[in-house]
Amino acid sequence: MSSVSEGPRPGRPMSADTDRAVREATEELLAEVGYAGLRMQDVATRAGVGKAALYRRWPSKAALALHHLIGDLRPRDYVDTGSLRGDLAEVAADFVARMAHSRVRAVLPEMMADLLHDGALQAVFEQVCLLPERELITAVAERAVARGELTCLPELRWAHAQFAGPVFLWLTMLGGDGDRELIDRVADSVAASWAYEKERNA
Amino acid sequence: MSSVSEGPRPGRPMSADTDRAVREATEELLAEVGYAGLRMQDVATRAGVGKAALYRRWPSKAALALHHLIGDLRPRDYVDTGSLRGDLAEVAADFVARMAHSRVRAVLPEMMADLLHDGALQAVFEQVCLLPERELITAVAERAVARGELTCLPELRWAHAQFAGPVFLWLTMLGGDGDRELIDRVADSVAASWAYEKERNA
Repeated sequence: MSSVSEGPRPGRPMSADTDRAVREATEELLAEVGYAGLRMQDVATRAGVGKAALYRRWPSKAALALHHLIGDLRPRDYVDTGSLRGDLAEVAADFVARMAHSRVRAVLPEMMADLLHDGALQAVFEQVCLLPERELITAVAERAVARGELTCLPELRWAHAQFAGPVFLWLTMLGGDGDRELIDRVADSVAASWAYEKERNA
Repeated sequence: MSSVSEGPRPGRPMSADTDRAVREATEELLAEVGYAGLRMQDVATRAGVGKAALYRRWPSKAALALHHLIGDLRPRDYVDTGSLRGDLAEVAADFVARMAHSRVRAVLPEMMADLLHDGALQAVFEQVCLLPERELITAVAERAVARGELTCLPELRWAHAQFAGPVFLWLTMLGGDGDRELIDRVADSVAASWAYEKERNA
């Protein structure tokens, strides 16, 4: 198990040009051969950098691929709509948009195994994707409590699973669309579940 | 893309002895080296069968591994508890027990990519796992309508995602436990969501 500091360092550029060349090569190859067919050597060759240099910055192809998904995975800014249902729809719309992105949809299921086994990669994923998402959901719940729409905060790790789980399955295994209907379904089901907790606690 | 008929044929035994030997070899190797390290050649050697014979029955290691997960993936018999919440808890308990099984938990995330790309494998998974689950959920919803607890059937593909999605994410990416609390959370959130639909349709 590597520590977080040994993981990829997305904030430290090699050089702007090299970084751009590696990004373009990775995105092109992901589109051409998919995650399973991606080879570090091919990325290095196409980007015109040494394989050793590539490995110094990204210790695995999973880390490299994740780094190039980060822009698509990171949640957008939070919008306060003035109501719980409205806020949930904002967060759901953002979440669905990210998960339905063709690159994320193609690569994320293939990275599942690597994410579960590689501690360093998991730490980056947690930092870039899971934590900011949980913070967004927390902010929505806290505002609802402040407005009196909820009496107490829901269990946030479970709330996160309620948001992310059905969307992930819907877009991958169940072959569904990332449309307005999906966004409303996610917002409705989380709103209903939180209201149910409120009633039970009342 | 292969057609379903070219997929694995779990119902047609090689011979009882050979079948048992292949099962034992596959389970042992999955436990020792995981799905990523599983090799058809190693299964053939340990089971004492030819590699060609192995491939004739299971066209890929994914099909072989899935076949040996089938007993764990197949839903149990349906129990009518007399109430929607009770029935949902039964289905959730069964679902969580299957997904939390150490073998399923270890292998399913690693098979995600294969499941998404291999049409024949997907057809088997659909037949063995997804369809029976959807039928269980349908039966629960139909009884609730018959009892007057619901006014109409929920959208069943989405209901399935609400059941399976959070549990899958909880047990894999979020590192949660498959305990009684999880079962109650799933049952509560689906019950709440269906009741919400009822109110909206009223």
